[in-house]
Amino acid sequence: MSGSRTEITRLAGKGSTDRRALDALLDTAVVGHFGLIDGSGGPRVIPTAIVRDGDVVLAHGSTGSPWMRMLAGGAATCLAVTAFDGLVVARSAFESSIHYRSAVLFGRCASIEGAAKSAAMDVITDALLPGRVAELRRPTEREVAATLVLGLPIEEWSLKVSAGWPDDPPEDVAGEAWAGVVARVVSYGTPLAAPDLRAGLPMPASVRQLAAVRAPGAP
Amino acid sequence: MSGSRTEITRLAGKGSTDRRALDALLDTAVVGHFGLIDGSGGPRVIPTAIVRDGDVVLAHGSTGSPWMRMLAGGAATCLAVTAFDGLVVARSAFESSIHYRSAVLFGRCASIEGAAKSAAMDVITDALLPGRVAELRRPTEREVAATLVLGLPIEEWSLKVSAGWPDDPPEDVAGEAWAGVVARVVSYGTPLAAPDLRAGLPMPASVRQLAAVRAPGAP
Repeated sequence: MSGSRTEITRLAGKGSTDRRALDALLDTAVVGHFGLIDGSGGPRVIPTAIVRDGDVVLAHGSTGSPWMRMLAGGAATCLAVTAFDGLVVARSAFESSIHYRSAVLFGRCASIEGAAKSAAMDVITDALLPGRVAELRRPTEREVAATLVLGLPIEEWSLKVSAGWPDDPPEDVAGEAWAGVVARVVSYGTPLAAPDLRAGLPMPASVRQLAAVRAPGAP
Repeated sequence: MSGSRTEITRLAGKGSTDRRALDALLDTAVVGHFGLIDGSGGPRVIPTAIVRDGDVVLAHGSTGSPWMRMLAGGAATCLAVTAFDGLVVARSAFESSIHYRSAVLFGRCASIEGAAKSAAMDVITDALLPGRVAELRRPTEREVAATLVLGLPIEEWSLKVSAGWPDDPPEDVAGEAWAGVVARVVSYGTPLAAPDLRAGLPMPASVRQLAAVRAPGAP
């Protein structure tokens, strides 16, 4: 974590330099938003699935996507990863807010190639649905060739975490309004089999295990 | 919806021009990501709570935030609003994906002032916690003055929706792998009273009603 771009300018008390806290956010967020400058000099935000692999954030997409190609070409980018973890119910509208974790990473992506590309694709598949790689056939050469895999090094970043109680002034605490926090919980519903599923194929362990996933505040 | 910036370049079949579908996304997403060009010409992404009010997307923040001030000053921006609605479990890693709704809006924010500002602040408070405005004291003049309220007109936008079944080729459908979809569900946990809550203050209706909120795929 370095550089003035990562300086927390507002609510500095919520700033964190804890790499484990950053990793925990990246490992549960699933979706990230890449900022880019478009061909006419305007701002552009591209949402996409993101997966952490050690010190790199992976993303993938089609070789047909202009934005993926721009990122793969090393365009300067800013990746925002945000979790909305709950509501802060204060005694005034002014102090009411949300619990969140918000990371911003700066840098340039590299296109991951060769043997590392296939490995990274497996990491992405298993991050979105743990255990799924072992249940599937291997990707074909054509499928690998049609996929762009991007890696953004985790080097220049900042993290802000809001996780506290309402911070009301004494005159509001003495008043009649209730205050507290309410966590936001993300879970998975009952898996639905595809209409064209062949009869007799059992639901695999990867999907059955989703029922146990209950993550606070994954976005 | 107009302009080449909103043309869907990838998976055009997922594009939607349905304003009601856009509104449904904006009304449940809570968090949006504003893209900006920073002072040195680099991309920057700012996550913040967003609330739709008719044909305008509202956001608010402190007058002390440089990013809020830049947006209030009319900087060109791109607002991405994304919901991750579930997993598409296909018969190959290549066809596996997620259910999502992804909106991108382009334009410039205006700072909302005067009587409209106070009204917009109420809209934001009640959107995040329905019914809360009626339970709280009115904001003070100082609180209103310390808040920037931004409005981005809903004029130039695009929407992509992925909500279908896995689309596997016949040779994979004939294979041994299971396929289906699993919805992602967002709900609220048990409200926790603030440690400094005065004894005897009951939990208000707004907070009690959160227990019934169970939204598919709010991000």
